[in-house]
Amino acid sequence: MTYRELLSRSIETRRSHLCVGLDPVPQKISGSVEDFLVRVVGETAAYAAAYKPNIAFFEALGSQGYQLLEKLRAIIPRDIPFILDAKRSDIPDTQAMYARAYFDVLQADAVTLNAMLGRDSLLPFLADESKGVYVLGLTSNPGSADFLAKNMEGRPLWKVFVDLCTDSSLGPATIGAVMGLTNQTAAEFAALPDIPLLIPGLGAQGGDADALAGLGARRAPWLVNASRSILYPPEGPAHIARAADDFRRTINRAAGRFPEHDHA
Amino acid sequence: MTYRELLSRSIETRRSHLCVGLDPVPQKISGSVEDFLVRVVGETAAYAAAYKPNIAFFEALGSQGYQLLEKLRAIIPRDIPFILDAKRSDIPDTQAMYARAYFDVLQADAVTLNAMLGRDSLLPFLADESKGVYVLGLTSNPGSADFLAKNMEGRPLWKVFVDLCTDSSLGPATIGAVMGLTNQTAAEFAALPDIPLLIPGLGAQGGDADALAGLGARRAPWLVNASRSILYPPEGPAHIARAADDFRRTINRAAGRFPEHDHA
Repeated sequence: MTYRELLSRSIETRRSHLCVGLDPVPQKISGSVEDFLVRVVGETAAYAAAYKPNIAFFEALGSQGYQLLEKLRAIIPRDIPFILDAKRSDIPDTQAMYARAYFDVLQADAVTLNAMLGRDSLLPFLADESKGVYVLGLTSNPGSADFLAKNMEGRPLWKVFVDLCTDSSLGPATIGAVMGLTNQTAAEFAALPDIPLLIPGLGAQGGDADALAGLGARRAPWLVNASRSILYPPEGPAHIARAADDFRRTINRAAGRFPEHDHA
Repeated sequence: MTYRELLSRSIETRRSHLCVGLDPVPQKISGSVEDFLVRVVGETAAYAAAYKPNIAFFEALGSQGYQLLEKLRAIIPRDIPFILDAKRSDIPDTQAMYARAYFDVLQADAVTLNAMLGRDSLLPFLADESKGVYVLGLTSNPGSADFLAKNMEGRPLWKVFVDLCTDSSLGPATIGAVMGLTNQTAAEFAALPDIPLLIPGLGAQGGDADALAGLGARRAPWLVNASRSILYPPEGPAHIARAADDFRRTINRAAGRFPEHDHA
């Protein structure tokens, strides 16, 4: 099965475009991080079209954190894509090591990459159609204005990176783009090619769900990520499942997807 | 002590601008990777002005590899800078996690970063003058021509990144640049501002030592990295110390540094 098929099936099965970001912060958790992750996955698996751990939050815990990431992979159901948010960039020989680390050892289904080092830096991740890659387009931080939004040879740099997603000469793997919700309008999303999108910025980062309006018309599978707002709901840790389902419904309503006939 | 002072002292003490890249590949090693790293550090510590493990080679070994990286840190003498080649990029909240992972937990002295996500993405690494950062300038791979060598608002993108190195408003930490030897001439090095340089590409990557000619005149501390050619010398593993000393001398001769009056 291709990554694109795996993701599309997960979206249809759960009637959800929600990606749950798994960014554990020990200071916000009572009990062990491992128990917390087991609980979060158990409570959100009905609503999560995908999971996206950001590896930085595990590395911040040292080699024990890296072990936790491996344990997390083992508890995530195989029919839910496991997207490792790593944003790696290096020369090709070194990228081959990262591809081994994430696809072979950790068994991630997809990984985020920073394409700045060039087309050859992506190739080690693109040989296998069962895997997916999301290149960084326009990120959700203010600093995305410094370089990503500036022109390279007449076009914003992030659009140059988005072009990589439709270049089938790079390899058989699925290539999508990370497009931060905080910097996008519905019209800007509509202007993007029909590529898989991974959209962070909903929830704690303050992105506007109205910008999702046109996404329901896209054929390529798309995901909207929320992390902190689901893992640490303001109402307390007993509300994690509710928070995930609420985000799922909010996204569906905003995009006109999976209408509900029987909700209260 | 600032990172810049630590590095300058190490260069003077060892009469060396050599950075030894520590990129273990189990298939090229007889015995355990840990024993290999202990041996390499022991045999090269007299010639290495700095060590630069690339974290991808450790991640490729899973959480056990991450543990190895922690063990490696513990065996490297504290007066030799430990530069973690990570090339990380993310939004500021996440970069703060990487800074914790590398500066606090792993106790690296410096780290390589990809500045594409903007100035705010660097700030979490720049608060402490005892630490150093190297932003990617022009890398040593062919793909550096795809984006890094192209113009952004009239200047090559890599030069825009190099400008970050002289921007003291970003924070007190030392900021240098990674400049691949394979893409540079002596004249191009001479045209760079007097910032700390980390220069990969000598040895297996085929960079030309003649390009180092003008570096002896620079005041900011500079390093030339070799990895594979030292760790896996063609004459066999008994020649690691000799390979490191040879690279040290080659670099010194090319740059007109640390003249030797008594060599054969």
